[in-house]
Amino acid sequence: MRSVEWNAETCELHLIDQRLLPAQFEVVVCRDHYETAKAITDMVVRGAPAIGAAAAFGLAMTACRSKSTLTDAFIKEIEVAAQVLNQSRPTAVNLAWAIKRMLRLVVPTKDLPSLKAALINEALSIAEEDVLTNKRISTIGAELLKDGDTVIHHCNTGALATVDYGTALGVIRMAHEQGKRIHVLVDETRPRLQGSRLTAWELEQLNIPYEIISDNMSGYFLRKGEAQLVLFGADRVAANGDVANKIGSYMLALAAHANNVPVYSVFPLSTVDMQLSNGDAIPIEERDPQEVLDLQSHHQPASPAGAKARNPSFDVTPNHLLTGLITEAGIIRQPFDQNLEQIFKTRNQD
Amino acid sequence: MRSVEWNAETCELHLIDQRLLPAQFEVVVCRDHYETAKAITDMVVRGAPAIGAAAAFGLAMTACRSKSTLTDAFIKEIEVAAQVLNQSRPTAVNLAWAIKRMLRLVVPTKDLPSLKAALINEALSIAEEDVLTNKRISTIGAELLKDGDTVIHHCNTGALATVDYGTALGVIRMAHEQGKRIHVLVDETRPRLQGSRLTAWELEQLNIPYEIISDNMSGYFLRKGEAQLVLFGADRVAANGDVANKIGSYMLALAAHANNVPVYSVFPLSTVDMQLSNGDAIPIEERDPQEVLDLQSHHQPASPAGAKARNPSFDVTPNHLLTGLITEAGIIRQPFDQNLEQIFKTRNQD
Repeated sequence: MRSVEWNAETCELHLIDQRLLPAQFEVVVCRDHYETAKAITDMVVRGAPAIGAAAAFGLAMTACRSKSTLTDAFIKEIEVAAQVLNQSRPTAVNLAWAIKRMLRLVVPTKDLPSLKAALINEALSIAEEDVLTNKRISTIGAELLKDGDTVIHHCNTGALATVDYGTALGVIRMAHEQGKRIHVLVDETRPRLQGSRLTAWELEQLNIPYEIISDNMSGYFLRKGEAQLVLFGADRVAANGDVANKIGSYMLALAAHANNVPVYSVFPLSTVDMQLSNGDAIPIEERDPQEVLDLQSHHQPASPAGAKARNPSFDVTPNHLLTGLITEAGIIRQPFDQNLEQIFKTRNQD
Repeated sequence: MRSVEWNAETCELHLIDQRLLPAQFEVVVCRDHYETAKAITDMVVRGAPAIGAAAAFGLAMTACRSKSTLTDAFIKEIEVAAQVLNQSRPTAVNLAWAIKRMLRLVVPTKDLPSLKAALINEALSIAEEDVLTNKRISTIGAELLKDGDTVIHHCNTGALATVDYGTALGVIRMAHEQGKRIHVLVDETRPRLQGSRLTAWELEQLNIPYEIISDNMSGYFLRKGEAQLVLFGADRVAANGDVANKIGSYMLALAAHANNVPVYSVFPLSTVDMQLSNGDAIPIEERDPQEVLDLQSHHQPASPAGAKARNPSFDVTPNHLLTGLITEAGIIRQPFDQNLEQIFKTRNQD
């Protein structure tokens, strides 16, 4: 199944519970926008494109299940649901982007049944487009990978982080499907270990060779010349190409840059927030310190009782550290501000 | 008790088992050089100065327990023990330094009882000097810390990593004892978590405020201006000031350097290997990948069954990233090659 899957008959959203992998494969069912928002906040579903699609289905669910007979009351219902979903996580802009795209359809002139149908169809379109976009991104990005390359990858950007196929991991998957021998050094990605738990699990399924490393090891391998490329996703990209992504991306990019290894951030254009001139204005979520502390190594607790911790979930990689941005519109090179502006100008004219 | 403690009556070495802290406080007793070498390899005792002292006591034990009545046979015994101990871990040079210092006493002209006594006394001197040296280093380094500073610290360099008091953590401890309010951001230090397990435990005992962070977060805090100083130890320092230290030190130094935050490596001069012109020749230990994989988060395994991993234990921070080297001979500034040469020239003349 897909990580984000809509059941049209029951108006339910089915999500692979990403908190339990790889130990257990379980499905969480969301029946209203509250359950959907909770699933996003608790990281049952995670990954910027996946939470965008999940939020869209959260609104589709409201449309599908609404008992309103008046358009005005229905619109009010949708607006409340949109607000709840919008606040479920702060950093990834795909969430706001998907909700905004859904709300654009909500106009009081439409009759109620066609308005409801339009919302459900739009959520399905967002999901389908995500898969097509990811395959396009992956085909474009795979050009950069050469047979025999070792790639360092941070967090999880695969089928689980999207509706299907993946972004940065999609690039690796596409190169592998093209017959190139690719080796992946998988950053375990503390504190929630999306790399060792989810990316390693996906690579096992895809039969792509990999080795897990702790996040602090990538500098060692980059300095030794053991990796030819660094790939990670994005949760929000500013107009100047600064990239907010999973905590640790910045240090990885610094290490790659210092060793002249190319670094690409891979994302759909829905991840770009052209309203923000640079990355410093991107809101960074600080999550429960317990996520850092609740760790056992060799079945021993990893910190003393009463220990305190900090837990910023994302960091910002300044644009000068990035070699390029891999998107469905092609590989965007520096200067990112001008090239992003050009792309969005063209798209808005379409 | 000290992390490395000699019992003169029983000729035993008592080591705090650093693999079990903070969950359990247990003592491992070594009765011969094999047990001592095994305790070093298995990381019952760790930290460059601590393993240097432990190795010296490993030889003292052989001296103390030897049944040889002939000087030649005794010397042969000591030489075999020295070889075994020398190979227990490859990166920290303090191990080789302590053994070499012990072997300098082994001359066939001495009578056997005084030779044995000399070896035991020398090991005790190495241990006592380590404590005095650390306090001197800490006093010198504490000058750099200002009231209200936040320091990022990597791995464990406290009382546990030395015979007592510590090096980089000693600097923090001394500043705290001087009444300065110091806050520590403790790198958890994957894979063996010496930061969250040992450094946090020591800071709890010393009542110094701290917060644990995962290693990939330091870049975030440095970029936000939340830390004023970065301190870590050293396992081997080359003649040009390149520093081999616990894996992750290099990426931390890169992040500090990129944000104009001073980075100091703190160590006794016994950590300097003047035979090596630069850090690229320092042997880097790759340990069992299971150390990376045997991790549970929220009581779930952190990687799929059959996962592979890499586990380099140290990395090299090139000298240009370091602001200075804090030693018992003072704070050494750039150019490190010339300033280190000057110090060792003076010492050799003493």
